[in-house]
Amino acid sequence: MRRKLFCLTACALITLTSWAQQALFNGNDIVSPEVKNDCSVTFRLYAPKAITVQLTGDFLSQEKNGIINMTEEKNGIWSYTSEKLAPELYSYKFRINGMDYLDPSNIYMNRDIATYTNFFIIKEKKDDRGYLYSVNAVPHGNVLKVWYDSPTLKMKRRMTVYTPAGYEKGGKYPVLYLLHGAGGDEEAWTTLGRASQIMDNLIASGKAKPMIVVMPNGNTNCEAAPGEWSKGMYKPSFMGHAGSKSIATMDESFPDIVKYIENNYKVLKGKNNRAICGLSMGGGHSFDISKRYPNMFNYIGLFSAALFMGNNNPQKETLEGMESDSAFKKEISTLFNAHPKLYWIAIGKTDFLYKSNAEYRKFLDSHKYKYEYYESEDGHIWRNWRVYLTLFAQKIFK
Amino acid sequence: MRRKLFCLTACALITLTSWAQQALFNGNDIVSPEVKNDCSVTFRLYAPKAITVQLTGDFLSQEKNGIINMTEEKNGIWSYTSEKLAPELYSYKFRINGMDYLDPSNIYMNRDIATYTNFFIIKEKKDDRGYLYSVNAVPHGNVLKVWYDSPTLKMKRRMTVYTPAGYEKGGKYPVLYLLHGAGGDEEAWTTLGRASQIMDNLIASGKAKPMIVVMPNGNTNCEAAPGEWSKGMYKPSFMGHAGSKSIATMDESFPDIVKYIENNYKVLKGKNNRAICGLSMGGGHSFDISKRYPNMFNYIGLFSAALFMGNNNPQKETLEGMESDSAFKKEISTLFNAHPKLYWIAIGKTDFLYKSNAEYRKFLDSHKYKYEYYESEDGHIWRNWRVYLTLFAQKIFK
Repeated sequence: MRRKLFCLTACALITLTSWAQQALFNGNDIVSPEVKNDCSVTFRLYAPKAITVQLTGDFLSQEKNGIINMTEEKNGIWSYTSEKLAPELYSYKFRINGMDYLDPSNIYMNRDIATYTNFFIIKEKKDDRGYLYSVNAVPHGNVLKVWYDSPTLKMKRRMTVYTPAGYEKGGKYPVLYLLHGAGGDEEAWTTLGRASQIMDNLIASGKAKPMIVVMPNGNTNCEAAPGEWSKGMYKPSFMGHAGSKSIATMDESFPDIVKYIENNYKVLKGKNNRAICGLSMGGGHSFDISKRYPNMFNYIGLFSAALFMGNNNPQKETLEGMESDSAFKKEISTLFNAHPKLYWIAIGKTDFLYKSNAEYRKFLDSHKYKYEYYESEDGHIWRNWRVYLTLFAQKIFK
Repeated sequence: MRRKLFCLTACALITLTSWAQQALFNGNDIVSPEVKNDCSVTFRLYAPKAITVQLTGDFLSQEKNGIINMTEEKNGIWSYTSEKLAPELYSYKFRINGMDYLDPSNIYMNRDIATYTNFFIIKEKKDDRGYLYSVNAVPHGNVLKVWYDSPTLKMKRRMTVYTPAGYEKGGKYPVLYLLHGAGGDEEAWTTLGRASQIMDNLIASGKAKPMIVVMPNGNTNCEAAPGEWSKGMYKPSFMGHAGSKSIATMDESFPDIVKYIENNYKVLKGKNNRAICGLSMGGGHSFDISKRYPNMFNYIGLFSAALFMGNNNPQKETLEGMESDSAFKKEISTLFNAHPKLYWIAIGKTDFLYKSNAEYRKFLDSHKYKYEYYESEDGHIWRNWRVYLTLFAQKIFK
């Protein structure tokens, strides 16, 4: 066995200080979170001197703000065991003496703007949410971080491209353009959104067509995610890097992305092979882009969409406001007269953008423009957006 | 401005609980670390109820184990300002009441096996270490996570591939195979190792030739990094996933990698267009692979190499032991009779593998086998390996 030398040297090194030979050989033996066979989960933290240790997570009762007290066991280990949890990706943190703290036993974490939380996944059986968000024993697509030229924004810009399993072997593929929300970047859909796992699993089970998924950066004042461009290792804020203005909008600059993809990937071209969708600001971008280029996409998805971005007049976001906006009416008329195969609107019942989406649906209804509508529980959260992607991906290119 | 709506809605959401509408709009206003113009650095942490707050980092005096007490300022904020630091990538954590804690104001962190530490970079001027490890305003290569077939290991496996800026435009490129150490995986060189930044910057300044860099996973019992394959979201241990044996070694299975790269990328073929190097276990892999396939590489780099992996007999790692091993002597003889253009050995003065490397150099000297040697300060640490990559990359394909 080739491990022998390393076992010996690792043991020797543990006695050295961590910075002298790097933190290579640190770690602890605590298992947390431990997902049990019955889908309950035990959380453990070693905190011998703590006064209070709490667990905060999106699976805990929202009546108590998602916070629960943990119990001190022997040896300074605090623990809490949840009830059985339904299949899902869940997020949590510890709170020690009132301060939030990542779980040092769990290397899996996601960043949302400037905040990390740990996560874990519950899966019970094939095709449940936990299964769809997990890496399973199915063929995997590749995930590429690529730089493209945007003459419109006068920048080279970074985006994430998913190519489906088997892409290298030949063939041409349709393309889904998948857009993030405000505060996100080209990393968001593959981290918080589990997009490559969702696509791997849906394609492997034949529920979605093999497709390329393009996840650009929607912050037009940024070249890339924080730390990935020359602006340095800044702390991200709500709308990307706050220090500069962009010279064009996402919809103005979007053709640069399509051009790069169609020139550099094995792509089926034409409206019937292009889909676009996005969440929140990315839903607003999908709304704007699809009406600006009415013959570009046959499949359009608005997830919790921030319609009418930049608008400062609430009256404009009502049925009456839309009816009295002749430029808007003409754009929407042109789009729907091009007969997109799918115009899909999804939103949660408690989403703060529910009302403007409802008014927009009234407008579409009043003109008999054909669309599909999906309403979920809850609000403006990634749990919903992962579900919306799962549903939308099964409806396109068929 | 398109930001108006989002500013309004963000303000509205801050009053909601974080889990109800996700942690999208959290964060704090503390700046930490703050790199000053004079290259001193201020660290800040909000910990109003803490009894002790310390800073632990690889830039602090090792005489005190790299730990220093922070001072409580007003409003519960603790701070520490370092002296002027030399250009470098530095790692740190906070220690509150004796427990390690990541900096909640710094989103930049690296994982080493199961432990995260925050990091920051000091750069003063072009081409210093901090510059080489930073993303600068130069053309960027793409970083790809791709799945290849390894018939030898009977697995599909994941690796990281860097393609240099301009790759899409045409031309063929030489290939550097860059191997990680025990505890690492196909993520290590692009996170801890800053390989894509080093290559972008060296290529942009003309100091290195444009090349493809291939970073495979050297744990032959794993398909991929933790969480990226079907073994689930396990906690990584020293030699990858501990639960299974591998059916072949890295050197036995290495041609599967070369085959995939040469079939799927625009690659210049032949020995003169292939280089291999690696750190620690990856140095051992480079040592094994280069002697197993003496006509595969013209450029070979051993960084703090774990030579003779799997050996249990210290006598074998001496000059006398090597001289008495006829099979080993024949392999090395065959390799050096094929006249590799560069055989480069680098190690730090306090590295725990220093002695076996020194004995190996004695052996090479006694046979007049031509190699280059670079000795640095310090031991088995990433700071050294980033420097070794920087030096090696400038010596190859020229």
